[in-house]
Amino acid sequence: MTVQTSPGHSITARVSAPAGFSATAALAAAAASAGADVTALDMVESGHEGVVVDLTAYTRGVTHAAEVVEALKSVDGVEVANVSDRTFLMHLGGKLSVQSKVELRNRDELSRAYTPGVARVCMAIHENPDDARHLTIKRNTVAVVTDGTAVLGLGNIGPAAALPVMEGKAALFKRFADVDAWPVCLDTTDTEQIISIVKALAPVYGGVNLEDIAAPRCFEIERRLREELDIPVFHDDQHGTAIVVLAALINALRVVGKEISEVRIVVSGVGAAGHAIIQLLKAQGARDIIACDRNGAVDHDREYADEHRRWIADNTNPSGFVGTLHDALAGADVFVGVSAPGVIEGKHVATMNDGAIVLALANPDPEIDPLEAAEHAAVVATGRSDFPNQINNVLAFPGLFRGLLDAGVREISTELLVAAAEAIAGCVASDELTSSYIIPSVFDARVAPAVAAAVQATAVTQPAATTEEN
Amino acid sequence: MTVQTSPGHSITARVSAPAGFSATAALAAAAASAGADVTALDMVESGHEGVVVDLTAYTRGVTHAAEVVEALKSVDGVEVANVSDRTFLMHLGGKLSVQSKVELRNRDELSRAYTPGVARVCMAIHENPDDARHLTIKRNTVAVVTDGTAVLGLGNIGPAAALPVMEGKAALFKRFADVDAWPVCLDTTDTEQIISIVKALAPVYGGVNLEDIAAPRCFEIERRLREELDIPVFHDDQHGTAIVVLAALINALRVVGKEISEVRIVVSGVGAAGHAIIQLLKAQGARDIIACDRNGAVDHDREYADEHRRWIADNTNPSGFVGTLHDALAGADVFVGVSAPGVIEGKHVATMNDGAIVLALANPDPEIDPLEAAEHAAVVATGRSDFPNQINNVLAFPGLFRGLLDAGVREISTELLVAAAEAIAGCVASDELTSSYIIPSVFDARVAPAVAAAVQATAVTQPAATTEEN
Repeated sequence: MTVQTSPGHSITARVSAPAGFSATAALAAAAASAGADVTALDMVESGHEGVVVDLTAYTRGVTHAAEVVEALKSVDGVEVANVSDRTFLMHLGGKLSVQSKVELRNRDELSRAYTPGVARVCMAIHENPDDARHLTIKRNTVAVVTDGTAVLGLGNIGPAAALPVMEGKAALFKRFADVDAWPVCLDTTDTEQIISIVKALAPVYGGVNLEDIAAPRCFEIERRLREELDIPVFHDDQHGTAIVVLAALINALRVVGKEISEVRIVVSGVGAAGHAIIQLLKAQGARDIIACDRNGAVDHDREYADEHRRWIADNTNPSGFVGTLHDALAGADVFVGVSAPGVIEGKHVATMNDGAIVLALANPDPEIDPLEAAEHAAVVATGRSDFPNQINNVLAFPGLFRGLLDAGVREISTELLVAAAEAIAGCVASDELTSSYIIPSVFDARVAPAVAAAVQATAVTQPAATTEEN
Repeated sequence: MTVQTSPGHSITARVSAPAGFSATAALAAAAASAGADVTALDMVESGHEGVVVDLTAYTRGVTHAAEVVEALKSVDGVEVANVSDRTFLMHLGGKLSVQSKVELRNRDELSRAYTPGVARVCMAIHENPDDARHLTIKRNTVAVVTDGTAVLGLGNIGPAAALPVMEGKAALFKRFADVDAWPVCLDTTDTEQIISIVKALAPVYGGVNLEDIAAPRCFEIERRLREELDIPVFHDDQHGTAIVVLAALINALRVVGKEISEVRIVVSGVGAAGHAIIQLLKAQGARDIIACDRNGAVDHDREYADEHRRWIADNTNPSGFVGTLHDALAGADVFVGVSAPGVIEGKHVATMNDGAIVLALANPDPEIDPLEAAEHAAVVATGRSDFPNQINNVLAFPGLFRGLLDAGVREISTELLVAAAEAIAGCVASDELTSSYIIPSVFDARVAPAVAAAVQATAVTQPAATTEEN
């Protein structure tokens, strides 16, 4: 698969060149011939003898960026003064700030926001703890909790290095659903300690979003926190992914005219995401799911030490299929990949049923090149933004938490996850639906409100799982 | 001591009254005769038959507010539609929000702030952990940590009820020094657990402000965190108070023309604040300090199980004075109270030396009525905003942390605390200095920058305590 240039690898080079149109045109041509996508040429200084230009371009990565700079330097009369990296520039000083919602201009305001007035607010909460949802930030605030052990595709890079991702997540919460999210990057990988810390932090928060915590520790942490806290706990890598996969599948099945209860679904990958996807597909009525790990199809005759894999073995593969992932694809209707790059090829997709659906989510490189998959499948989706049908968790978590907080949900049920998935799918109208548009854009402003509304509407049918007052 | 009306007990009553000037004037008169301070009469509706007015007034508390409302109702033709409490209104939804500093308008911005671009920022920090100070919120972010066991004068009200105070503290950090502070209200009172939680949270923060944690637990927590973390740890109830007391004393001694090394100082109260005050006064050159607890003067011949009281016994009372607090005041130059309301009277102040200084900080009611103290002392200061010379920690902590963060300080030395105190004292010019103006107003915009600059200037003389890069 060709690596594309990306704004994530965008550079701005400050270049001096001889005066005249041809010099700047030569710069742009040099960058383009080195494979960069030039997005801007900004004149900084212009004189009779020469010009200074900021050339901004997308590159394919660090090595490619260096090649582009070399190409600029090779143009006659050109000197590169410096090269700045727009991604790093954006991160200087971090991506979040804490703002006061109250002005403290004078004694009157200070006396109400702080001492002595605040004491009455404290005592009101002391006497009626539920008042914390009205009189503090708790109602709108979510902890984004990680231990830095499974960050993006980077692995165990630790809590400090994970912080830019958690800040970005918090920025997305704000941008898409006006949720105040705060990064909690824990310098421990001890399961019991993580559980006890999150429980101790809970008074400030109305919800917990677990993020980038390695399996199998993430399962235990999520399960225990759900049991022991009275605020909703969500592991985005599991349930966020599952919601968006289900949304994509609902619409893909509409495109090919099949029912979820009738199709055979092959899931490659039985980690945290695979486990959650299988649970949600079953909740939506899927009956014939074959899950595959590196050793092939999971079936209930094999031995599994891990309770999560045991659950998968007991709840999938009703026909007792035995064989490899490639074998399993023969005659299947749907492929869902949450595993590793390149594990299947076009020839395997060719053995699937007519109207095959391929959802290949390994990041950044999918289980199969999407162009190759599209030669044989009716619908193809990936996690990538440079192909149609991007499966992106940003579609789910902001609106989901908006709905959870507004409804005062204490516990996330499977029905709420399904409602979120259906709301996302519903943002693509019947007359818009095509094989290359099964899922809305992450910038579609209708998605988060639709998800929030669906979650709230479902929550009111589950009063036991919400706070009394809501 | 007369209880004053306070904006912290401000109410707004929506009242319908007959049309005409006399009706609204009667309303204001009724509120005033009930002892309220009317601050606003806002016309909401006006017609031939009558008017609707929002009357806003400071009261002395909840009971008094009810009396004021009754007084309004007793006016002919007046009906009170509802009464809102401006302090509670200000707290609805909490006092803080998390804002994104990056806009996420399009794919280019999303790709740099989040995936895939953010991965390179993560790896840069993974390879060079000190980069977290440049590329994340760490550099400007402070944790305001409490367990809710000693909140204001309210005692052990728990972490949820403490949150409004911590939010207020964070709002003050922002307002006065542009520091991003975040409330951490811990649902545990276990010393070891609090220490391990704060250590685990540290990757996100550039400093820790401990707040309203009961003694003696606060001593151990602070000591251990200072030893085990590489970011500054500050217990505001101790060191914040000590800074402002020292600032007030520096200027009070200028007013009466005495040297700190020559005066006898009596400290009433040997808890967290008293301990820190004594340390700082000694660092500034005080030699003759007598500390008193409920049993009278602490001296090194008495037995103390508690190591902090032992330290005080070993480091004060060089003359071996034995006696009560009242005895100790005879011939003393300075009284510092961090103990309980009303423990001394004017007749005790009368036994002090000429040019006596009384700093009576018990809150909300001082060790002595400040008007009574002023009959015998040359300078009187309290923690109250309704008398001159308010000793308020807001003068210290915002600028202190601004300086600590900007200088990359890893460890707070006594020199830094003294520098902060001298900077606060220096904000009162010689020609402004009087017995009723020894300390600047909390709204004096010069204070926080002056404190920050002094802290930074002192920190550069202590390179071992700062990060390499700063």
